[in-house]
Amino acid sequence: MTLIDSIKTRRSIRRYSDKEVTDSLLNELLDLSARTQTMGNLQLYSVVVTRDKEMKQKLAPAHFNQPMVTGAPVMLTICADWNRTTRWCQERNAQPGYDNLLSFLNAASDALLYAQTFCNLAEERGLGVCYLGTTLYNPDAIIDTLKLPRLVMPIATLTVGWPDEQPALNDRLPLASFLHKETYRDYSVKDINLYYNLKESLIENQEFVRINKKENLAQVYTDCRYTSTDNEAISKTLLAALCRQGFLD
Amino acid sequence: MTLIDSIKTRRSIRRYSDKEVTDSLLNELLDLSARTQTMGNLQLYSVVVTRDKEMKQKLAPAHFNQPMVTGAPVMLTICADWNRTTRWCQERNAQPGYDNLLSFLNAASDALLYAQTFCNLAEERGLGVCYLGTTLYNPDAIIDTLKLPRLVMPIATLTVGWPDEQPALNDRLPLASFLHKETYRDYSVKDINLYYNLKESLIENQEFVRINKKENLAQVYTDCRYTSTDNEAISKTLLAALCRQGFLD
Repeated sequence: MTLIDSIKTRRSIRRYSDKEVTDSLLNELLDLSARTQTMGNLQLYSVVVTRDKEMKQKLAPAHFNQPMVTGAPVMLTICADWNRTTRWCQERNAQPGYDNLLSFLNAASDALLYAQTFCNLAEERGLGVCYLGTTLYNPDAIIDTLKLPRLVMPIATLTVGWPDEQPALNDRLPLASFLHKETYRDYSVKDINLYYNLKESLIENQEFVRINKKENLAQVYTDCRYTSTDNEAISKTLLAALCRQGFLD
Repeated sequence: MTLIDSIKTRRSIRRYSDKEVTDSLLNELLDLSARTQTMGNLQLYSVVVTRDKEMKQKLAPAHFNQPMVTGAPVMLTICADWNRTTRWCQERNAQPGYDNLLSFLNAASDALLYAQTFCNLAEERGLGVCYLGTTLYNPDAIIDTLKLPRLVMPIATLTVGWPDEQPALNDRLPLASFLHKETYRDYSVKDINLYYNLKESLIENQEFVRINKKENLAQVYTDCRYTSTDNEAISKTLLAALCRQGFLD
């Protein structure tokens, strides 16, 4: 199986079989993923592996108790990490200056690129993975549980295991909707209707609208899933966590 | 070729042959990359394709005139994009609230995961790619040149083409250096020496130290490549650009 084949039928997997994910396989994939592009070849990330049942239970509330946290054999918390590089510099009588917004974003980029190569490799091998979108929602609980020091910030969490489900493929927007040639061409009403028509017409999405008693799918997003009030509140928590971890001193 | 094979020998490619990267191939890869995981299936990214010579010349200064900008057949600027989703919400009488830090980071994540799947796919196909680490350094020039509207922020730039070089493989840190089991284990002096020993012993890195008249490699990073002064100054520019694009109102 090549990536080009596996990506065509990829879906996020939230239910896993009892089959073990061996350390040997996991470490092989985590090691290979490190071939991913990285800023100045510094590898500004760390991975915390959670296999212990108690640790999963401690992390679960930070992820709103989504069942795959305790149900997955392995959880990976992928962190933006300037701590290791900073420790290296300090040992070498070099003056590190990586406690700022740019450095945070550079490390977060490194961490996310690494995470995605890991996903692509794991899925090509037949493993199932799922990103938990909640990592940035409750960073403090994750920082405390995983004992993350200053200049380490959790960025992405993955659950990993052998698939025990085969959910339907999700829809995606057509290429034309996110592709711009030479300059950004803003969207007309006609464009929006054309690009979102398929998504809005899907039976499962119409069902979401009905259950949530909304007029349409966009309102399910703005009023239920990702509300302005939540986004503003979480942004404040996030800013505080970035300060706590030393990136906005 | 599978990803597991191509990743083992991957290197960033900065020199490209004259062979065309056809729209057909490029679009196939850009479309397939959209199977990548995305928050709430919203695909919070856009891709601006640059093929036009004049446009490359306009973008070049923002990327410190690195020669691959004008030398590559294709440049991709991958953007965090809440504009499209916001336009959709507005057309549907839904109240979007995505002008905040959390929303920016969610869209930046989507953009980076998308970018990395594109790289994995392109490299599996034999194409060469290179991230330009400069996208966050001069966002204003990129925003102006590509005419990016509010709620669209450039996050990553890739040059793409058929390889015309085969540089040596870069070193990477050993897995043990970035892998933590259950909790983060901070680094002792012994750990640091162990993990950075290979990197410091490489002839090309010793040459960097000599050329830059530094005591060691860490000082090349802190005093020449990524200085505190630059990082602080660029962080300010970046913060201003995030305000300008409406993410920190």
